[in-house]
Amino acid sequence: MLIGAGAPVVWAAQTDAPAPAKSSNIKVSAFASGLENPWGMQFLPDGRLLVTERPGRLRYIAKDGRLSAPIAGVPDVAAVNQGGLLDVLLAPDFEKTGTIYLSYGEPREDGTNSTAVARAKLVADGDTGRLEDLKVIFRQEPSADSGHHFGSRLVWGKDGTLFITTGDRNKLRPEAQNPANTVGKIVRINADGSIPADNPKLPGWAPEVWSIGHRSVQGAAIRPDNGKLYTLEHGPRGGDELNHPEAGKNYGWPIITYGKEYIGGSIGEGTAKEGLEQPVYYWVPSIAVSNLAFYDGDLFPEWKGNALVGGLAGTRVERLVLNGDDVVAAEVLLEDQGKRIRDVRQGPDGAIWLLADDTGEVLRVTPAEAAPKPE
Amino acid sequence: MLIGAGAPVVWAAQTDAPAPAKSSNIKVSAFASGLENPWGMQFLPDGRLLVTERPGRLRYIAKDGRLSAPIAGVPDVAAVNQGGLLDVLLAPDFEKTGTIYLSYGEPREDGTNSTAVARAKLVADGDTGRLEDLKVIFRQEPSADSGHHFGSRLVWGKDGTLFITTGDRNKLRPEAQNPANTVGKIVRINADGSIPADNPKLPGWAPEVWSIGHRSVQGAAIRPDNGKLYTLEHGPRGGDELNHPEAGKNYGWPIITYGKEYIGGSIGEGTAKEGLEQPVYYWVPSIAVSNLAFYDGDLFPEWKGNALVGGLAGTRVERLVLNGDDVVAAEVLLEDQGKRIRDVRQGPDGAIWLLADDTGEVLRVTPAEAAPKPE
Repeated sequence: MLIGAGAPVVWAAQTDAPAPAKSSNIKVSAFASGLENPWGMQFLPDGRLLVTERPGRLRYIAKDGRLSAPIAGVPDVAAVNQGGLLDVLLAPDFEKTGTIYLSYGEPREDGTNSTAVARAKLVADGDTGRLEDLKVIFRQEPSADSGHHFGSRLVWGKDGTLFITTGDRNKLRPEAQNPANTVGKIVRINADGSIPADNPKLPGWAPEVWSIGHRSVQGAAIRPDNGKLYTLEHGPRGGDELNHPEAGKNYGWPIITYGKEYIGGSIGEGTAKEGLEQPVYYWVPSIAVSNLAFYDGDLFPEWKGNALVGGLAGTRVERLVLNGDDVVAAEVLLEDQGKRIRDVRQGPDGAIWLLADDTGEVLRVTPAEAAPKPE
Repeated sequence: MLIGAGAPVVWAAQTDAPAPAKSSNIKVSAFASGLENPWGMQFLPDGRLLVTERPGRLRYIAKDGRLSAPIAGVPDVAAVNQGGLLDVLLAPDFEKTGTIYLSYGEPREDGTNSTAVARAKLVADGDTGRLEDLKVIFRQEPSADSGHHFGSRLVWGKDGTLFITTGDRNKLRPEAQNPANTVGKIVRINADGSIPADNPKLPGWAPEVWSIGHRSVQGAAIRPDNGKLYTLEHGPRGGDELNHPEAGKNYGWPIITYGKEYIGGSIGEGTAKEGLEQPVYYWVPSIAVSNLAFYDGDLFPEWKGNALVGGLAGTRVERLVLNGDDVVAAEVLLEDQGKRIRDVRQGPDGAIWLLADDTGEVLRVTPAEAAPKPE
């Protein structure tokens, strides 16, 4: 078959320069502002948001974006450097029980601190609320006199167990390889703090440890298509990682890393070693990864299944298209906004919701064309 | 083992915001300027460059960056839209014979044009040169009355065969699936234009066809660690692809694509279909990929084995870290320069050399710290 000269043009011609070529056509609006270092958020069944502020406050945000007064009864936190009140998670039976979970840097009497997780009952109190029956269900051991590498995201596994991501506290770096403690680990416990029967419990492993060799894991999400845990780990100067932590495995920090010391010089033994897991994807230089969400909404139908990765220093959301654990495409979004993205969630409205650490905003990302407002 | 409070700090603390976090520490300098739509370049053994300009000129660039007068004897080209004088390649025995290869849009007497490849002897002529014994060794058939989708990179396979990448001319889109012609194909011939004995030659396939189902392939390079061909293909609105074209395979255009029509609407049958190959990596939205180089120099030791991908509308070089055909990390470089990158090559000095289509420059990229000058 030969199509000769003068055949009708049935397709619009490509030029080398389709515009706009650099970014998907999206819109960002500030849903709320006035927060101080917001860290974690959850959508409540009544349409409000629950947001943590690192200095130690938990607030409702109403459907019109107004902040409530701080919720009473939040535990004391070590609000030093990266520490403070960190993530928030609703219990699966929240509608019935009002139970929420908080992660935070917990101060100790000896002046040290560590990552802790508490659960409590959230009770309405006028336009705000209070926490009752607060109980600490996890304490990272050992503690350290440090303001760094607390982790700590909270996410429910498909089986109702609770994943807690921790960090190496920087000062305790070698402990990330010591399976007998919870420094630099992914931890898995039951909703009441007890130990799941099917945790790895390898010889020498603390019973709550799921995987070892992590530096500071600030992002965690369950991937819808395989039900598995994926995490984001802060590297040092370079070497941020997307991991798929599996039970009983060693993710290598600080023996292997794609990063370098801030003060110069290499770390560990290189980038790969037998018996140590490789990341699914990594960033050199670092974008300072925060949290991630797997998108499965209807507002961005072409993004279903994509991982949306927040970046702090990288001031972006990076959209990764995955085929199994192979990243087959990536797009940098919102870098021009210049905002430090601390949390990334999909809202019940199908929009992408972000917390901006530096500007204290809750941002809502929708297609530029048109999008329904949240109810 | 427990490291208590007051343990000495032996590592510099991470902050969330290492600076600079957004890009590797590199420097770009303009080595030469004053070119009009430069398209392809080659490094000559004497240290000069040979550069094509799409309107139909071939020039030397001296070691001090000065452009020579145009080299005489270049064939007439169809310098319309994306067409014109395109790639240049040195014969493996160039030092002995002076033989070079050129790809270009060749005008036909009936007003149509098509991609052609000629070889000729480059002979010195004062400060410039002339081509002698020019012979056309490949002509894409059928031709079309079109200014689009000419391909066309030239690269030597490890076995000394010549890969020529073509395009679908936009008007001949369905022909990309017709293996009997050379529209939208990767072509493989010998250095003299004859057909290699081990070409696929599947039933119904033209003997010079290596793989089918391509849209417009502007990038081609042999990957050092496996000796295989990798190509970059322009998608429509979205769907630029990095491919690893293997003999006798079908890369799907226009049956499957991650792109969309410029005039709106979908193309073909979706993004995947049995019997059609998936890209190694793709870009949605498009960055308008041009050429790529696999880096194996010493100036950027950490980038060895990485693919460096040029972007026109995306005004960037994208650095991809590959583990087999799995992209495990990506970094966008030079986007702030805002220049349309048409060609990416590694120089004999280990620097990364670029052609900027819009500014008419030859750019040289080196580490910011220090770098030897080219001799």
